[in-house]
Amino acid sequence: MCELLGMSANVPTDICFSFTGLIQRGGRTGPHRDGWGITFYEGKGFRTFKDPAPSCQSKIAQLVQSYPIKSRAVISHIRQANRGGVSLENTHPFTRELWGRYWTFAHNGQLTDYQDLPTGNHRPVGQTDSEKSFCWLLEQMERRFPETPKDMVDVFRYVAALCDQLKEKGVFNMLLSDGEYLMTYCTNHLYWITRQAPFGNATLLDEDVEVNFQEETTPEDVVSVIATQPLTGNENWQRMKPGEYGLFHFGKRIATNMDDLKDVPFAAPKPGNQAPTELLE
Amino acid sequence: MCELLGMSANVPTDICFSFTGLIQRGGRTGPHRDGWGITFYEGKGFRTFKDPAPSCQSKIAQLVQSYPIKSRAVISHIRQANRGGVSLENTHPFTRELWGRYWTFAHNGQLTDYQDLPTGNHRPVGQTDSEKSFCWLLEQMERRFPETPKDMVDVFRYVAALCDQLKEKGVFNMLLSDGEYLMTYCTNHLYWITRQAPFGNATLLDEDVEVNFQEETTPEDVVSVIATQPLTGNENWQRMKPGEYGLFHFGKRIATNMDDLKDVPFAAPKPGNQAPTELLE
Repeated sequence: MCELLGMSANVPTDICFSFTGLIQRGGRTGPHRDGWGITFYEGKGFRTFKDPAPSCQSKIAQLVQSYPIKSRAVISHIRQANRGGVSLENTHPFTRELWGRYWTFAHNGQLTDYQDLPTGNHRPVGQTDSEKSFCWLLEQMERRFPETPKDMVDVFRYVAALCDQLKEKGVFNMLLSDGEYLMTYCTNHLYWITRQAPFGNATLLDEDVEVNFQEETTPEDVVSVIATQPLTGNENWQRMKPGEYGLFHFGKRIATNMDDLKDVPFAAPKPGNQAPTELLE
Repeated sequence: MCELLGMSANVPTDICFSFTGLIQRGGRTGPHRDGWGITFYEGKGFRTFKDPAPSCQSKIAQLVQSYPIKSRAVISHIRQANRGGVSLENTHPFTRELWGRYWTFAHNGQLTDYQDLPTGNHRPVGQTDSEKSFCWLLEQMERRFPETPKDMVDVFRYVAALCDQLKEKGVFNMLLSDGEYLMTYCTNHLYWITRQAPFGNATLLDEDVEVNFQEETTPEDVVSVIATQPLTGNENWQRMKPGEYGLFHFGKRIATNMDDLKDVPFAAPKPGNQAPTELLE
């Protein structure tokens, strides 16, 4: 299996703290030795650092850990291979263009009977069930919306229905982003937390590191972090349910199929749950 | 304008020496301050490091310079912006999938009347004439070969004909790779050199660095380097002509439209020009 890490924020935010916790699990406090990767969006562009070597020993991971790249959408993954060998082409995240945007995908789980999923011209390069399912999602998205769609929340709702189909084939925990939105889908292990004022302290579970977010933020900052397992021990991470999808936009969770927030349209937040002005640009 | 750097090799080879020379031109010995990027292929996979900041000041460039990533195909670019602002989405190289391979592209030059080039579903994300022309190339390649082509030399010959059309629109010096082949196209500034046994010394023009390739190689190694301007002062770089294309495969130049080597098919090297066994895998 693998571990996922995602971040959605309303201001460009670095992920050094959470990434420091995650990479310990890539061979030190966890068994995920078969590569790691992280994609940062900056505007419409992105950059990805990846390595098929264990993250706990990777010089590139050390750079990412110490070099604060600020982003509003991040997806990271550490891998314990099941389908597909240990190689760069099988290392998550995967990024491809659709509708003039870069889409980034990472998966935790294992599928069966995925080989025949039709992917059209979105052909996999590597051998993983993960990349194959990403290509299938892109193909279905493009078929359903041949032209660039205007309502992206609607697109993600459609992706959630596609994920329901993949869930029938095995374990499919997923992060997907177009640089503005970050979508999550859970079949067994996925947790999330939204940090906003008043900010407190947090202590990593996997490394002796503590941070006082109040010193690192402004009162308007809203940052959500999603992970396969909670990364801190003294905060209240919320566990996602099987079949639950979540849609994060600039830090806030704005849609889900669960009862607490049923597909609240982005343009019309619930009273008392007013989005900060950054979300309404 | 910008500067290009490419490498094709028959064994995984690091490009630290040439890259050290190139990045000096990104703000120190040259004016190309508007970002830089480098893509390394490893097997069918790739990794790209890029930064919209000047390469001579970039921490990530320092890592790439000191961390020997070994590859058989590399494309690098330092940018002096003309079309499109200074941003990550406008930073070369660009990589996209076609026929289940990753294609990487970098361009030096400036085009006019490129806005109407039809790109189909290969939509640009940024605003450069470069990415637009890459998307157009991919669209034309896919139209001409709807299914994965068997003869890649034939594909690159077709791309060369497409480049002849782009040349009518301005300056179009280009590097293109699928990880196995490296193609060059020249309209004004592009040089190449093939290093093989007996190896000698080389001295960078832009930095006080000398290397003895004999200590770094085995007698079977064949490495070609392509650059906008020669990177070393004591070697015999060959200048490409306007309208010249070159195709490099595992270190050797195997096709061109120039007289000295007219489209020698890869499978049938000329007598006396026998490819080493690495090329015949």
